[in-house]
Amino acid sequence: MFFHKQELQFTATPAKPDAILARRMQELLGGQYGEITIAMQYGFQAWNAHIPGKYRDLLYGIGSEEFGHVEMLAIMIAQLLEKAPVEQSEEAAKSDPVLGAIIGGMDVQHAIVAGAGARPVDSNGNPWQGSYITASGNLLADFTANANGEMQGRLQAARIYNMTDDKGVRELLSFLIARDTMHQNQWTAAAAELRAEGVEDLPVPSNFPLGQEQREVSYQYLNFSDGAAAKDGSWASGPTPDGKGEFSYHDGPTTSSPMPPPTQPDPRLFGTDP
Amino acid sequence: MFFHKQELQFTATPAKPDAILARRMQELLGGQYGEITIAMQYGFQAWNAHIPGKYRDLLYGIGSEEFGHVEMLAIMIAQLLEKAPVEQSEEAAKSDPVLGAIIGGMDVQHAIVAGAGARPVDSNGNPWQGSYITASGNLLADFTANANGEMQGRLQAARIYNMTDDKGVRELLSFLIARDTMHQNQWTAAAAELRAEGVEDLPVPSNFPLGQEQREVSYQYLNFSDGAAAKDGSWASGPTPDGKGEFSYHDGPTTSSPMPPPTQPDPRLFGTDP
Amino acid sequence: MFFHKQELQFTATPAKPDAILARRMQELLGGQYGEITIAMQYGFQAWNAHIPGKYRDLLYGIGSEEFGHVEMLAIMIAQLLEKAPVEQSEEAAKSDPVLGAIIGGMDVQHAIVAGAGARPVDSNGNPWQGSYITASGNLLADFTANANGEMQGRLQAARIYNMTDDKGVRELLSFLIARDTMHQNQWTAAAAELRAEGVEDLPVPSNFPLGQEQREVSYQYLNFSDGAAAKDGSWASGPTPDGKGEFSYHDGPTTSSPMPPPTQPDPRLFGTDP
Amino acid sequence: MFFHKQELQFTATPAKPDAILARRMQELLGGQYGEITIAMQYGFQAWNAHIPGKYRDLLYGIGSEEFGHVEMLAIMIAQLLEKAPVEQSEEAAKSDPVLGAIIGGMDVQHAIVAGAGARPVDSNGNPWQGSYITASGNLLADFTANANGEMQGRLQAARIYNMTDDKGVRELLSFLIARDTMHQNQWTAAAAELRAEGVEDLPVPSNFPLGQEQREVSYQYLNFSDGAAAKDGSWASGPTPDGKGEFSYHDGPTTSSPMPPPTQPDPRLFGTDP
Amino acid sequence: MFFHKQELQFTATPAKPDAILARRMQELLGGQYGEITIAMQYGFQAWNAHIPGKYRDLLYGIGSEEFGHVEMLAIMIAQLLEKAPVEQSEEAAKSDPVLGAIIGGMDVQHAIVAGAGARPVDSNGNPWQGSYITASGNLLADFTANANGEMQGRLQAARIYNMTDDKGVRELLSFLIARDTMHQNQWTAAAAELRAEGVEDLPVPSNFPLGQEQREVSYQYLNFSDGAAAKDGSWASGPTPDGKGEFSYHDGPTTSSPMPPPTQPDPRLFGTDP
Amino acid sequence: MFFHKQELQFTATPAKPDAILARRMQELLGGQYGEITIAMQYGFQAWNAHIPGKYRDLLYGIGSEEFGHVEMLAIMIAQLLEKAPVEQSEEAAKSDPVLGAIIGGMDVQHAIVAGAGARPVDSNGNPWQGSYITASGNLLADFTANANGEMQGRLQAARIYNMTDDKGVRELLSFLIARDTMHQNQWTAAAAELRAEGVEDLPVPSNFPLGQEQREVSYQYLNFSDGAAAKDGSWASGPTPDGKGEFSYHDGPTTSSPMPPPTQPDPRLFGTDP
Ligand SMILES: [Ca+2]
Ligand SMILES: [Ca+2]
Ligand SMILES: [Ca+2]
Ligand SMILES: [Ca+2]
Ligand SMILES: [Ca+2]
Ligand SMILES: [Ca+2]
Repeated sequence: MFFHKQELQFTATPAKPDAILARRMQELLGGQYGEITIAMQYGFQAWNAHIPGKYRDLLYGIGSEEFGHVEMLAIMIAQLLEKAPVEQSEEAAKSDPVLGAIIGGMDVQHAIVAGAGARPVDSNGNPWQGSYITASGNLLADFTANANGEMQGRLQAARIYNMTDDKGVRELLSFLIARDTMHQNQWTAAAAELRAEGVEDLPVPSNFPLGQEQREVSYQYLNFSDGAAAKDGSWASGPTPDGKGEFSYHDGPTTSSPMPPPTQPDPRLFGTDP
Repeated sequence: MFFHKQELQFTATPAKPDAILARRMQELLGGQYGEITIAMQYGFQAWNAHIPGKYRDLLYGIGSEEFGHVEMLAIMIAQLLEKAPVEQSEEAAKSDPVLGAIIGGMDVQHAIVAGAGARPVDSNGNPWQGSYITASGNLLADFTANANGEMQGRLQAARIYNMTDDKGVRELLSFLIARDTMHQNQWTAAAAELRAEGVEDLPVPSNFPLGQEQREVSYQYLNFSDGAAAKDGSWASGPTPDGKGEFSYHDGPTTSSPMPPPTQPDPRLFGTDP
Repeated sequence: MFFHKQELQFTATPAKPDAILARRMQELLGGQYGEITIAMQYGFQAWNAHIPGKYRDLLYGIGSEEFGHVEMLAIMIAQLLEKAPVEQSEEAAKSDPVLGAIIGGMDVQHAIVAGAGARPVDSNGNPWQGSYITASGNLLADFTANANGEMQGRLQAARIYNMTDDKGVRELLSFLIARDTMHQNQWTAAAAELRAEGVEDLPVPSNFPLGQEQREVSYQYLNFSDGAAAKDGSWASGPTPDGKGEFSYHDGPTTSSPMPPPTQPDPRLFGTDP
Repeated sequence: MFFHKQELQFTATPAKPDAILARRMQELLGGQYGEITIAMQYGFQAWNAHIPGKYRDLLYGIGSEEFGHVEMLAIMIAQLLEKAPVEQSEEAAKSDPVLGAIIGGMDVQHAIVAGAGARPVDSNGNPWQGSYITASGNLLADFTANANGEMQGRLQAARIYNMTDDKGVRELLSFLIARDTMHQNQWTAAAAELRAEGVEDLPVPSNFPLGQEQREVSYQYLNFSDGAAAKDGSWASGPTPDGKGEFSYHDGPTTSSPMPPPTQPDPRLFGTDP
Repeated sequence: MFFHKQELQFTATPAKPDAILARRMQELLGGQYGEITIAMQYGFQAWNAHIPGKYRDLLYGIGSEEFGHVEMLAIMIAQLLEKAPVEQSEEAAKSDPVLGAIIGGMDVQHAIVAGAGARPVDSNGNPWQGSYITASGNLLADFTANANGEMQGRLQAARIYNMTDDKGVRELLSFLIARDTMHQNQWTAAAAELRAEGVEDLPVPSNFPLGQEQREVSYQYLNFSDGAAAKDGSWASGPTPDGKGEFSYHDGPTTSSPMPPPTQPDPRLFGTDP
Repeated sequence: MFFHKQELQFTATPAKPDAILARRMQELLGGQYGEITIAMQYGFQAWNAHIPGKYRDLLYGIGSEEFGHVEMLAIMIAQLLEKAPVEQSEEAAKSDPVLGAIIGGMDVQHAIVAGAGARPVDSNGNPWQGSYITASGNLLADFTANANGEMQGRLQAARIYNMTDDKGVRELLSFLIARDTMHQNQWTAAAAELRAEGVEDLPVPSNFPLGQEQREVSYQYLNFSDGAAAKDGSWASGPTPDGKGEFSYHDGPTTSSPMPPPTQPDPRLFGTDP
């Protein structure tokens, strides 16, 4: 169960209205790596978790914080839009170049659809979608997805930080960025702990019998391009991170098989057949 | 530039037709973490890369291999469908329970749309989409995304391995799973190398000045749920993986701010105002 | 069957070209609550209707009008685009700030994809989709959806009305807005008539036996937030609109159940298990 | 801010595993009118609200309950899937017709992608998307959308109730259905209260000056089909629900305008011109 | 304007209920090449047309017929679903293998969402979307798109024809297939007429000055694979269909350019830079 | 298998940065008819082909070239973005009208998500999707789809050519446009060759027995609108392109059938029934 409190985790009031910035902030709210993604991802991972205890409590513990981040961003965006201009004709743009920039740079659905409110979309107006999230039931895979999510999220927030000098927005971003720092560290620690405790290991899933994979090619770097520098990486020689092999480097494939003949399905499918 | 050779990297011929399995294999071809995602993700990361040399060559080197994996799966699926039954009425199901299972378990668009061919969709028929991929220009973030991609991909292939006993399909899967083992190790090694060389570091992006984030909350675990076990994790005390702080544990938020008053936009937006 | 007449229901010619406005008008054509949604929704409701007579005739009667609204908007948009500028470089923007606004504010696919024509998309360029419509087979539910559709549609048209002073566009909008007035009234009347005639009633679906729902919680307002003002609403005490109960107010849930233990699926799904 | 408690509002444990039912339940979780839609819709309406007090508190108060409904359904689905069969070949179907039904009737991504977990998708596997929700800033329009949402949701739950005889699932459904009863009544009451208090009225938006619409056609029923029964409805004669007019009935349009000539855009758009 | 008549162009009543077939028929209604696509495509081409007269009248003339095809299919699907079974549990499947096939083979949203009605989706339940259609303003390009649309549509209808022996469905299909025959011929004739009249020609767009393209490579077949048989086609030597050149055959590219160095964007975008 | 070479087929370096143009170029990369569509379409057609030899070799031969076009565009876009401005506030727009145009005209996700890199989306930021492609297994249908693809693609490139005077971009476009000229001619020739060789013919699919379609209506032009000029086209009289009939012209339908009565599904679906 979730309970709501009419407070925010941090101050979320802009210094001044800015419809262009409101649109950019939508990426952090409803984008591929926005807060809706993060909140829903931790939620589904918790609901699908198979072991009780610290890992599941971790997912519940921060998942709920993330729904609060969704709220903070939505409220910030609504405030950035509060005084958005309504006159948006070419005529109006003529007299004011900043208005011209706003007309072009804002999300028009902020005005037409939401009446100056936040929306569950990204900065290009693409609706948020369930396929942004990952919840596989395998915790090492999913914590790696979470680490990635927090990295991409912090990266995007940092970029937007430099697109504005609005003090209020920067304060909120500095808070969210700090939380992303925490969560990057946290998922990195949690992934390491899964391996240290032997709960899960590389290669994921670690309980798939290695004897069932083609071990000959399990540690071969195969170069399908003509750049040779990849040979110098730690992925081309030496021991592998999973502790189970040695990398080797190869120019092109080490295996090959003739292409099977074209298929010839039932003629009642009316394909073009011989 | 890409060049094509009419050979496959590995044998990809099923023992027998199986339309149900063909549908499942679509996940590995056109799903969120299917080979199209992997190939396109490495491609865009290479095209957007900012530094020449081993990291970019790595992306080019295996990106092209992954387009070949797309091909192997497409050809396997076409063969699994080659003898798919065309009579698919309830009437026909009456006389043959296996046909009933096939009618229900196959992807109907395999027959109607593709005439027994592979499609750029997942196992539920959702079209592949560009929002599955990640290419941010930040290599540590992206290599983490790649490691996750190879983990989810190997996990799904392993699951499908156990859903069939078709020898040909299992052989192909055992090959792809081995390559996923390689690529999990490779991206883990490459991410570590980025950090070791100081090219990029935690928290990502490492060149965003830490002084611009709210450092007070950068290492606090905030528990927004009522499960207490998360306190025992390595993310709740001790040094942080980025080497820049100490984790601490807190029940609930350590900061709070009153919710701003509701916004009151221009009346010409016809919202419901006071 | 549908028959077409090369006339419009109302004048639809703008006073002058305006590519920015053309983009905004797309919301009314191909948005979530645009005319394509309205036309297709009434169509599918008619085709799925279960009772002959006035309700179905109503759906057929105005559904066809709505396809004509689609046409009026498409033709208006094409005219707004007729003289859209083709030079759209940064260079060109330098010399003319209005051109700069147009470059930013127009839908670029209007030029690149449609050659100055209308498109089946919303004002952010999202393609219209079938999931915008509702046709459940239950008329009270669907007429409520229709009333909502006409409300959202009129609201959006009114907002756009104030974004332009183009006389021709305003005339068309004043006509469409008047028709939305009619249709809001009409669906409200039709929903009331369904209840008055006993064809359908609250709660929808009215023929689901009330004894099969947990009647204890059927009229409880449960407050999961900390704002107390909701207690003052007519939904927190007094008789209920369905005439079958009394509202009551409660702080938080009145029921609770322990969370079930985590699931432990088949190990061959390779989740992270205990 | 949101806080989580590791309890459920109601019991959510199935009597037995049932992968087919798990798929159907996805509609109530991640469908167009599933609990994710309802929760997010109330959330965005609250964040975008313009007046403090009972209406906004109402949105906050039940929005948070709905996130708990999301959780209950996710947990129920995971349990229905807990013992989902992993062997899913045609071969296996041969020996067991029920397995054949399961192979066809289950959501294959439940196994392949989520490892027997719930997913943010509908019963056909379409990802949930932001365009399902409505939050316009106009409360009468939005409360009508909410009433519709609760009607469609209760209707779907009632249908699924009759597709199963699983005692645990039916219990959960009987609870959710009762809550939908409450919420249908609640939004109906709240919409009436908005009108009674003069905060908003028909036609929505009520503060758009009626003089700006083409009043001649504001109450005309125009029959664009050849069914005559719609003439008998309360929408074809008598006073209108908004209290501002009289309905009238007309066969076909009462207005007409010649179609404008085809547009002739810039030749550099390379359309086919005269 | 569109007017509706409560008649169908052809008989559309199935011999018996068949929920599996109803799902397949959705492809013809709401698929990539279904009737909604065809109707909307001709509509938008007409509304975007630049020349009055026979070509535009042609688009209007058959566009309206296609909306009637949408209706015929929707009504056929509703009838196929009229007696769809409601008991759909695993339990029920146990006693009846045909029911098992139906549970797997039907579109579950037909029952849960539409209450045994048609939906604007394809045979996998993907919602119809605006990006299926093509209306570029260039008639030769668009008529080619139309010819393709009628070919794919007839192909799919022919495939479904062989998936059923329901007499009523086959009759409807035989009618729609005949109309597709007409429309394939019609668009082929119309495309030829455009060229014969010099209104438009190959290469499309014919009014783009040929001198602005790299004429050296305008008729070169470049073989980027290792199959040599393509050399034997009429596209590898001899005069070209546009009457403006001669085909030639080349193994691989005839031009090449060094890859530009990696980009180095502003450091405030926090990419991984040298 | 695919092999990559770190060279481009043609020079792809812009004269100067231009974020607005970068956005427009996305249409050619990731739009409905962009290079990703073309490359994937030829790929899937090859993998699904049923006859070995020249037609399949053709698909392989140019499919691989098209993946190189994807790469050229991605690299061009990254270069156009290399110096994209990071300061993007309203404040900044005030001092520089060109910056205002850029803020409005660029794709904001280029900066926020990709850090000045290309993305798999169209010029409105819609993600590329698998439903853009066509691969039916019927070569005459598919080659017609391919001809259309190359026409729409060349048309869009020609439009963008006139939106810029950047010498580098125009050079790349002049190359891609020339290749589109080749490919339009090539698919036209290949389609003719299929017919000449009797491999496939009009109407597609040619092996569906004509006796199974309603031949009475196979060559009738039925005018469902009131424009009479379509009577003058070659599609209204004379021999048909398939060589199997004579066109005839009719005002309106030549067939008609009464609409079936409304359906009455199982009451447990809770539709509104009589
Ligand atoms: Ca966050
Ligand atoms: Ca792979
Ligand atoms: Ca309308
Ligand atoms: Ca609920
Ligand atoms: Ca048709
Ligand atoms: Ca190309």
